[in-house]
Amino acid sequence: MDAHRNYMMRAIELAKKGIGAVNPNPLVGAVIVKDGRIINEDYHHRYGEYHAERNAILNCQEDMTGAAIYVTLEPCCHYGKTPPCTEAIIDAGISTVYIGSRDPNPLVAGKGAQILRDHGITVIEDFCREECDAINPVFFHYITKKTPFVALKYAMTMDGKLATYTGASQWITNESSRKHVHLLRHTYTAIMTGIGTVLADNPMMNCRMKGGRNPIRIVCDSQLSIPLDCKICQTAGEYPTIVACCHPKSEKVNALQSLGVQVIVVKEDHGHLDLQDLMKQLGEKHIDSILLEGGQTLNYAALEAGIVQYLYCYIGAKLFGGTSAFTPVGGQGVATPSDAFSITNTKITSFDGDILIEGTVK
Amino acid sequence: MDAHRNYMMRAIELAKKGIGAVNPNPLVGAVIVKDGRIINEDYHHRYGEYHAERNAILNCQEDMTGAAIYVTLEPCCHYGKTPPCTEAIIDAGISTVYIGSRDPNPLVAGKGAQILRDHGITVIEDFCREECDAINPVFFHYITKKTPFVALKYAMTMDGKLATYTGASQWITNESSRKHVHLLRHTYTAIMTGIGTVLADNPMMNCRMKGGRNPIRIVCDSQLSIPLDCKICQTAGEYPTIVACCHPKSEKVNALQSLGVQVIVVKEDHGHLDLQDLMKQLGEKHIDSILLEGGQTLNYAALEAGIVQYLYCYIGAKLFGGTSAFTPVGGQGVATPSDAFSITNTKITSFDGDILIEGTVK
Repeated sequence: MDAHRNYMMRAIELAKKGIGAVNPNPLVGAVIVKDGRIINEDYHHRYGEYHAERNAILNCQEDMTGAAIYVTLEPCCHYGKTPPCTEAIIDAGISTVYIGSRDPNPLVAGKGAQILRDHGITVIEDFCREECDAINPVFFHYITKKTPFVALKYAMTMDGKLATYTGASQWITNESSRKHVHLLRHTYTAIMTGIGTVLADNPMMNCRMKGGRNPIRIVCDSQLSIPLDCKICQTAGEYPTIVACCHPKSEKVNALQSLGVQVIVVKEDHGHLDLQDLMKQLGEKHIDSILLEGGQTLNYAALEAGIVQYLYCYIGAKLFGGTSAFTPVGGQGVATPSDAFSITNTKITSFDGDILIEGTVK
Repeated sequence: MDAHRNYMMRAIELAKKGIGAVNPNPLVGAVIVKDGRIINEDYHHRYGEYHAERNAILNCQEDMTGAAIYVTLEPCCHYGKTPPCTEAIIDAGISTVYIGSRDPNPLVAGKGAQILRDHGITVIEDFCREECDAINPVFFHYITKKTPFVALKYAMTMDGKLATYTGASQWITNESSRKHVHLLRHTYTAIMTGIGTVLADNPMMNCRMKGGRNPIRIVCDSQLSIPLDCKICQTAGEYPTIVACCHPKSEKVNALQSLGVQVIVVKEDHGHLDLQDLMKQLGEKHIDSILLEGGQTLNYAALEAGIVQYLYCYIGAKLFGGTSAFTPVGGQGVATPSDAFSITNTKITSFDGDILIEGTVK
């Protein structure tokens, strides 16, 4: 049992090599074992390219007759961008298939496993399913809801401050934490902030990790008041940029578009962007995941709108004090502790004295 | 080397059994080893009673000639409440002494070790000193500064809130975290809060741990406005209670004293208690350690006055939001991140999803 588990864990490890490259596809890894020895292994490298199991089979130098394959997600059985993986498994003569996650698409779920069984192959489903599901929260969310998986990210002091009372925030966290933030930016398809943060900090919102992928930049700006000379607008030709507003003025829209900014119009909700409508529109644009790096107002609005699935709370090992210093989540707030937004499945990571708490938002 | 280390680690483990009972003495443990076997072990049980090494020697059923003793703190060489431990070691015929921490009292430091050497005993000093020092931060602070070791404790949400915008704070943390707070109250000699918290929450500030010791309660109340009918005043006959003020009115003082409250007068500093003067007076009253459970104003004042040595930051796995919700440290706050109060040597503990971050305040 432990050997089987180890093979699936290896498949999970391989799957993770696709981080930042496969979206909106899931991360998938595959390991082929014969006579107690791994004879080949591979993963899904990049969106549009072959799936993990097909890669592993294609490049296998040994005879796979009677082998077992460990794959983190149910093999597909339909022609999409690539031919069905079930076919490759059958053709290879593999006799046993261990499957981790089920296909979340209800139209397809179970069909891949069934086709394999119809060909006399032994199929073990739900094998290390929890661990396999855990590598693809974005995929499972996006495929079922059709809206992006949103992770709220902020960095605060140990007394809950985003900045000092003067507004200074460089730096709350250390280099090692900040490096990790760029890994997140590499991982998420888009990054979103509010017009307040753009006006206050004039950020670039790019990924400064070596070899990292720049996320699509999204600015929530109901009045379309973003300055044409801010860094984001000035670099929109280079990095995809979306500004979401409720009240487009054609002159400003034209000016933004000529800089390369895409302007989208979203429903209004009490004078602000209707964030649920925004998520619907972004989902239609194939944006599967968003890292929300907003100020306290947008952060609360997003929680209240129910669009936030995950939290990354970085904590710098210091105290600022200050009654008027900003905190990470503002707005009106909940009235009673029982109405609080719960964080479950918390995970803690240390970065040279700083701490990252992450977890699922309920 | 590893065997020696293991014996000292065992002595540390024993020392910790004195938590809550030995103050203002240090926690000390001792292990006696002969022919590669522990022949006895003990610790300092309670203030005023025998020291660890004397206990271990007294109750040893075997011949200690040629044995080694591992003791977490340098043995005393003077007559205090009990006879000198060096004498007991010499009389027992012990031939080797491993010492962890040095005696922090400069008048005594090194003398115990010297007397042992003068009697032909082999003495190894600074053995696992860091680990031994770590169990007695309060003792080392108090003996050298003559003021209490102050630990700031608060419980906040993952967005840095002490309460919702309506002031509701029950509960931010879960049962398991709150249980740990009562262990702290058992450990610290006193607990301190501000008049604001007394007026808002009417707390008992006692230790609700089974078999726990109630800390001395200290209220910072510059104007002496504490209500006579609050829980703290009403139970002052049962639990030692100190109210610190700048402006005593004799009638109020008399009323408080008749309830059992001790009123002390402290210098004024810009309309508030001079916290340094308060610490000096409390130190003179043999209060070696204080758990500060204040509101945001007192917490910042204490940090600013430089009287805080340690932080316990409990984080409940939830978000409240709320621009007007209170945060753990208020006041004016620092202007720039480089002026922040640093937290070093951070240690993280999980309590069923809640998190405790503790560390040294710099």
